Amino acid sequence: MTDPSPPIYVLGLDSGGTKTDCLVVDASGAIVGQGSCSVHDAASGRGAEGAGRSLETLREAVRRATEPLLPMRVDTLHIAGRASLPDDILDRRLTENLVYHPVRECEGPMALANASAGVVALAGTGAFVYGRTSDGRELCLDALGPLLGDSGSAFDIGLRAIRAVARAHWHPRHATTLVEPVQRACQQFHRKEGMGLVEYMLECPDRSEVASLARIVDAHASSGDGIARRILEEAADGLLETFRDVVAGLDMVDADLPCIAAGSVARKSRIYWERFSDRAARIAPRLRMIVPTPPEVVGVILAASRTMDGIAADFALRLRYEYDKDKDQHG
Amino acid sequence: MTDPSPPIYVLGLDSGGTKTDCLVVDASGAIVGQGSCSVHDAASGRGAEGAGRSLETLREAVRRATEPLLPMRVDTLHIAGRASLPDDILDRRLTENLVYHPVRECEGPMALANASAGVVALAGTGAFVYGRTSDGRELCLDALGPLLGDSGSAFDIGLRAIRAVARAHWHPRHATTLVEPVQRACQQFHRKEGMGLVEYMLECPDRSEVASLARIVDAHASSGDGIARRILEEAADGLLETFRDVVAGLDMVDADLPCIAAGSVARKSRIYWERFSDRAARIAPRLRMIVPTPPEVVGVILAASRTMDGIAADFALRLRYEYDKDKDQHG
Repeated sequence: MTDPSPPIYVLGLDSGGTKTDCLVVDASGAIVGQGSCSVHDAASGRGAEGAGRSLETLREAVRRATEPLLPMRVDTLHIAGRASLPDDILDRRLTENLVYHPVRECEGPMALANASAGVVALAGTGAFVYGRTSDGRELCLDALGPLLGDSGSAFDIGLRAIRAVARAHWHPRHATTLVEPVQRACQQFHRKEGMGLVEYMLECPDRSEVASLARIVDAHASSGDGIARRILEEAADGLLETFRDVVAGLDMVDADLPCIAAGSVARKSRIYWERFSDRAARIAPRLRMIVPTPPEVVGVILAASRTMDGIAADFALRLRYEYDKDKDQHG
Repeated sequence: MTDPSPPIYVLGLDSGGTKTDCLVVDASGAIVGQGSCSVHDAASGRGAEGAGRSLETLREAVRRATEPLLPMRVDTLHIAGRASLPDDILDRRLTENLVYHPVRECEGPMALANASAGVVALAGTGAFVYGRTSDGRELCLDALGPLLGDSGSAFDIGLRAIRAVARAHWHPRHATTLVEPVQRACQQFHRKEGMGLVEYMLECPDRSEVASLARIVDAHASSGDGIARRILEEAADGLLETFRDVVAGLDMVDADLPCIAAGSVARKSRIYWERFSDRAARIAPRLRMIVPTPPEVVGVILAASRTMDGIAADFALRLRYEYDKDKDQHG
């Protein structure tokens, strides 16, 4: 290379209720390191805000992603997706010059879709719908946390799954293949054999544990379990009610804009997103439904990169290319 | 009186998630004392099983009901509705000869309706549906506790109310008069001014606190609030799904038996019970819907009285008469 990348790096963080993803790229937009830590990981922590936002989970994801950086000279480290980090998260060799770029949760998905206006329908551990019109009006609804809100979230799906399993033997109409895997998962969370769902739920379970059941529900719905499919559809309908209010509040019924899937459920559950898209089209038929393929942490970095000094002019293009390349490789 | 009542008394206990009712009657069936303690009472306690089942609440209700007994000679005290009581609940003067008569939660309502077969649809802090056929087959579904089950319970209603209040400003279609009273109630529970619903719900609120909101919902539904009415109807439909499974499981579609309301919601919310009755009649049209008027603790005593020694032959008649008398007085 004639123009070697300067010793400036970008560390992006995407912390959800269930996991933290960390991605390190250089000033040209090339990937240097990546790390994840989730509730399924022995190194993860627990917390009221969910495992993904615990200090242990964050530390482990950052440690994994920054390992390749340690032997290098690092003059400036841009932190994308945070206004600050606890003192002991980063290795001392990296903290010479830290520049923080906080990114609102809606900005990452917008950046992934290269959109300046549109709708973000987020269903991860939590859930919200965000809208921004072409003239800059904004509305974000829900994100109220489990029990109170987060309609259509992974927590919502997990709670419905637990309730469905508790009723499965009441009548043949409730029969579901979710019984065995959900009971096993809840027992593992509590590290107790033979613990019943009643005891588990009376103790007000961790939100990321409940949310992590959404993956099981999606797998069983995809394999044809009717109860699992109905759970996903009811949850999608929950997010749709939030969507309905955002569209009405911003007068977007006729908007010709992207509607971007965000969060693991909206991005990865085909059944969920098809249900949501189908019903959303009846409310705002000209919205274009988009499921971005790069990881969400890429969107965080892209959104933050607009305000970064010292990175290449084609930083965003290069970073996007890393994932288009992957996509081509994997078909 | 030519036949003075012997020094034998009956203490009945009805402990729910939100309150404990205690009633003391003599061997003739005449009321001697009564006491209640609920989550609205400064003397009540809190607990995972709800305020009504806490030791403090129990002690206070018993203290109030047994005060008139203390100056009397008490040879035997029948305890209806318990298999045991903690040591320090009763005054020493009353514990010479205690005889415990545990009563299943379904038996009190059955006794109030003078029924040996039928359906009990209970919606109090918790919820269940119990059925017993004329040939003695039984099925009881739900009673699974908050979050996991208790479909159609006061907790279910309270949680729906909190969620509705959090959404009330999203769009005019969500407007409800519940906002102010529900927010005030939740602030009072936490004894914190300005505390938001988000913080309240993140801390996994006490089930009896949430359940106590059902009274507010019923009052506002009765005053014409559409959201409050829909909450009651959705909850009633939840209990109905449990009812549907009990009727199917016991093959009671054509049964000509009583269906008895139990629990504060089913007994006291006219809107709730009308919705439930209306839909239940489509499932099992020959069931006779009954809302007993005496307090539920009377049913506990009536159910237990079948196995009591030393009480008058017309004990049950006399005790029932005490409430028919009241009813006549109050119109």
